[in-house]
Amino acid sequence: MPDPVRIVGSYLSPYVRKVLVCLEQKRIAYEIDPIVPFFGDDRFTKLSPLRRIPVYQDERVTLADSSVICQYLEDLHPDPPLYPRDVVERARARWLEEVADSWMGDVFIWRLFNEVAIKPRVWGEKTDAELVERTLAVDIPLILDYLEGELPLEGWACGAFSIADVSIATFFRNAAFARFRTDATRWPRTAAFVERALASEGFRRLAPYEDLMLRTPIAEQRAALSGSGAPLTRETLGTQAPRRGVLSV
Amino acid sequence: MPDPVRIVGSYLSPYVRKVLVCLEQKRIAYEIDPIVPFFGDDRFTKLSPLRRIPVYQDERVTLADSSVICQYLEDLHPDPPLYPRDVVERARARWLEEVADSWMGDVFIWRLFNEVAIKPRVWGEKTDAELVERTLAVDIPLILDYLEGELPLEGWACGAFSIADVSIATFFRNAAFARFRTDATRWPRTAAFVERALASEGFRRLAPYEDLMLRTPIAEQRAALSGSGAPLTRETLGTQAPRRGVLSV
Repeated sequence: MPDPVRIVGSYLSPYVRKVLVCLEQKRIAYEIDPIVPFFGDDRFTKLSPLRRIPVYQDERVTLADSSVICQYLEDLHPDPPLYPRDVVERARARWLEEVADSWMGDVFIWRLFNEVAIKPRVWGEKTDAELVERTLAVDIPLILDYLEGELPLEGWACGAFSIADVSIATFFRNAAFARFRTDATRWPRTAAFVERALASEGFRRLAPYEDLMLRTPIAEQRAALSGSGAPLTRETLGTQAPRRGVLSV
Repeated sequence: MPDPVRIVGSYLSPYVRKVLVCLEQKRIAYEIDPIVPFFGDDRFTKLSPLRRIPVYQDERVTLADSSVICQYLEDLHPDPPLYPRDVVERARARWLEEVADSWMGDVFIWRLFNEVAIKPRVWGEKTDAELVERTLAVDIPLILDYLEGELPLEGWACGAFSIADVSIATFFRNAAFARFRTDATRWPRTAAFVERALASEGFRRLAPYEDLMLRTPIAEQRAALSGSGAPLTRETLGTQAPRRGVLSV
């Protein structure tokens, strides 16, 4: 039997979650090294030159970008498909994935989750309350206005459940960690979409591990996971003092 | 006859060039609206929510991300292929594309080209000489060390000429605009690769328009192109005062 797929990355990263949801949907077995990249040592830099998570490894390739990994999983295991068959819909799905990865990543992660969770928790720094206020008042509404124009009243963004839905929904999970909820009066399509997507199988299966991680200090996360049924690897790359770096992509 | 493909973006953007090289390689007819995104008006924001170039439009879809556009071109016009047929090589090509788009984009564009060309030329600001020195001494060598380990002595990064070669080489064209040359003694594979890639058909066909743009003030670029044989569109989105924004992706 070949070695199973190995994922390096934290359950709390939106980009790691995106890849794990694809693995779950396609029922591909995997192990996880639940590293927080700030703590990764030089072996981690070797694996991921940009110090990003997730990192994907199998016996043939190492990849350190969530979009590249998801496309590779689709090419290797086309069934069930997560990319639309129609060429135009497929392009639209990839475009929505990119909107999520970069725009939502910037706003939901760096201007919200980083401020209310990572800064106080990882670095012992104060939240920039003014930045968070502007994020909630201006930046997030711009994204929600955009999504409201793209998402359907029912069903999924590009026909069947696809990479677009996974990529968008994963950021709302981190937004929820930061106690953000979409106003269903102002953005009814988006609010209903988020609820539907986060209730889908892949997201639902991962949620208990995420909740466990949220309650556990970083240094104890590995030990907590080992008693939880999570698919852990034997080694960890996260052994050094924390080091500033890119969270994930 | 359907409307031709329309590209919004400057010949001097590495990401616009990446898409144009793919169009040239696949012999797809296109028109170009040579906008510098800093000058784009609100119609531009509508087309490109992240205010990035290139924007691709045909009668069926509008896309504003170079990787999504190139993959769509491949799906629509698979011949000649720009993505390897082998699944693992294809993943590697996409990974190298991402390394170029994000790592080389950050270093070659924001820490070099932006400092020596855009800041003085578009904004009338001084180059940060210390930053440029550090970029040349530290950041660029790290990238060249990485590429030296990935590129072959002869031929292309992933078998046949592919999206990986286009994505990497395009940044060396901007580096050349900023008078940077790769030291062939220290990085022989990379230096030879850059020379080969920039001499390939697509890059070669675009070079005269780029050279013309380099010699022309922004306000006069459109007029200069109209007498040059460049495939121009009828309208331009770039009519307002300059506005800070993302250059391209």
